[in-house]
Amino acid sequence: MSKECLNQIRSRRSIRKFSSKSIDEREIEDIVKLGFSAPSAGNRQPWRVVIVSDQEIKNQLSIAAGGQTFLAEAPVVFVVCGVPEESAERYKERGSSLYVLQDTAALTLNILHAAHLLGYGACWIGAFNEEEVSTIIRIPSNMRPVSIVPVGKIEGKLPEMRPRRNLSEVIVRERFE
Amino acid sequence: MSKECLNQIRSRRSIRKFSSKSIDEREIEDIVKLGFSAPSAGNRQPWRVVIVSDQEIKNQLSIAAGGQTFLAEAPVVFVVCGVPEESAERYKERGSSLYVLQDTAALTLNILHAAHLLGYGACWIGAFNEEEVSTIIRIPSNMRPVSIVPVGKIEGKLPEMRPRRNLSEVIVRERFE
Repeated sequence: MSKECLNQIRSRRSIRKFSSKSIDEREIEDIVKLGFSAPSAGNRQPWRVVIVSDQEIKNQLSIAAGGQTFLAEAPVVFVVCGVPEESAERYKERGSSLYVLQDTAALTLNILHAAHLLGYGACWIGAFNEEEVSTIIRIPSNMRPVSIVPVGKIEGKLPEMRPRRNLSEVIVRERFE
Repeated sequence: MSKECLNQIRSRRSIRKFSSKSIDEREIEDIVKLGFSAPSAGNRQPWRVVIVSDQEIKNQLSIAAGGQTFLAEAPVVFVVCGVPEESAERYKERGSSLYVLQDTAALTLNILHAAHLLGYGACWIGAFNEEEVSTIIRIPSNMRPVSIVPVGKIEGKLPEMRPRRNLSEVIVRERFE
């Protein structure tokens, strides 16, 4: 069973084509809950998730993301924000420059996993203008948008999984030579 | 089935007490493979994973991690490294300061998930002296250690899951007020 679950997680891919079919409110909650189950340094949870379904806001976000129009076609878009000071309170500069980014990345990945396991497609968008996104979502100045994740029913053919580097290129035993 | 998988992923917790029982080489491979299935910006995969089982190196790592001795008790320790320049080649400063940290955090979380699904315990360690770890593992100067993950059979009682913030504290609808 667990091995099956492992394989299921591995079969996730980035989806950039969505049908307009809406997502059940309970499933949206399942998705963010798995997101928030991510670990964070010292369990600080220095994060917020903005759940966007308003079409006009999604349109604006897709422009702020350099015209990635598929973003606006998804029924729901999650905007993940980091709150550097909530990690820095305990960890100083390492908290605000490293941990908050790692914590919110873990949250983001869990959103992708949850969407996939519930039969939806999703895509991690990192390329966007942070100032523009902050203006659109009215993100307070002590926070920072770190990722945008559109989620929806997959439209059309499932894309190929993108190739991974050979293990021998990326695994090192014990220490570097 | 997928819902079950979701619940299983959510039941993961941070483990800091390991038995000395070794981990099968095939399972180590399963763990890193799920790690490497993580998404990365532009599929750059700007990462390396060092698999440490040598006791002396694990001892040194635990010192570099401020005396987190449980690290040295795990049969296997994964040291995840980022390669900023491999993301910067395409994404410039945003690649080296943001994406490489997000990509390697995603990889790290998938290592935790895989360990958990295979019945092992694991813990994300972010608090360590990067220079000392780099010296111990002989990490090339164009790379940076970003996380350390000890993995092993869980010893003793399963720790409580750490509480999460109320959803109402961390979820925002459409945009901030």
